[in-house]
Amino acid sequence: MKDEFNDLKEMHEYAWRLIIRGIVENKSPARHPTLGTTGLFGMPELRTVVLRCANQKAATLEVHTDVESKKVEELRLNPKVGLHIWFPKNKLQIRFKAVSEIKTGETLKKQWDKVPYNSRISYGTLPAPGTSISTSFSYEKPANFERFCIIKIKIKEMDLTHLGTRHTRALFARESKWSGTWLAP
Amino acid sequence: MKDEFNDLKEMHEYAWRLIIRGIVENKSPARHPTLGTTGLFGMPELRTVVLRCANQKAATLEVHTDVESKKVEELRLNPKVGLHIWFPKNKLQIRFKAVSEIKTGETLKKQWDKVPYNSRISYGTLPAPGTSISTSFSYEKPANFERFCIIKIKIKEMDLTHLGTRHTRALFARESKWSGTWLAP
Repeated sequence: MKDEFNDLKEMHEYAWRLIIRGIVENKSPARHPTLGTTGLFGMPELRTVVLRCANQKAATLEVHTDVESKKVEELRLNPKVGLHIWFPKNKLQIRFKAVSEIKTGETLKKQWDKVPYNSRISYGTLPAPGTSISTSFSYEKPANFERFCIIKIKIKEMDLTHLGTRHTRALFARESKWSGTWLAP
Repeated sequence: MKDEFNDLKEMHEYAWRLIIRGIVENKSPARHPTLGTTGLFGMPELRTVVLRCANQKAATLEVHTDVESKKVEELRLNPKVGLHIWFPKNKLQIRFKAVSEIKTGETLKKQWDKVPYNSRISYGTLPAPGTSISTSFSYEKPANFERFCIIKIKIKEMDLTHLGTRHTRALFARESKWSGTWLAP
């Protein structure tokens, strides 16, 4: 827990340590960011996703999904995304602006092999996720590698707000090599 | 806690009970939804907001903010919003599609009078929130009624996903009087 920030580099590193914990700690808020896309009718669409990879050096994140899910259709039309994580204990909000890339097919075989057997049913729901069905359980969940999809997320900006004794806010951007600037909170 | 849903009306009522708790219970996830807007450069923008009112009958929500905050500028250009709440204990995700309306000025005097004195400093930061500043604390937080703004949110759709023993998902829309339809999860 940190009371206040007055060093940009320290704040940036602190945020990344929390993000990376999400990869291994199921209870970390970073495990379940909210992903925002522009919906097919221009309406913002938000949903919880599971963070699978986070690479500070490359400033990239990774999320897995079913290629038939609506968000993939949305991302193919508009790859710009927002991501959001709120760490209640650390009183830190992270807002990402990023660009996504959709990956599918044989090159993902290695990653698929690492997906636990029980989790593979997340990729292949019949009918496709979001399809109207007649009763609550009128669907099946076979595992289907062809539906496995990785969303690679290249971060452009990170906007951090810390609600310490005094509030602080800073923006870190790829184009300024993450050097950061303070913002009025 | 609910194991599984197979009744649309019950699921819809259950979600509203959880939403309304957010108004009074500081620890309820509904207290802090994530609000998604379309940013000024077409990038989805997500941030935590505080839920101030929720009216099931009218299907409206209310959030307060500083009229000089970026989100108000964004909403004036594009009033469409997405909202997201994830209830970890209830294993329920609520995704709202909605249209917002910005209110400011003398008609809000009654609501302003109810804002606790210590909270009024959230409306009036100098320079305006998001402005670049030289050090982390180069800002002031005077209370300023003229900066007090209510975002009224008229819900169009609620998409509920419940991760019970079996997953269920349902969509409720204003235009079908919230009767609901099951979706493949």
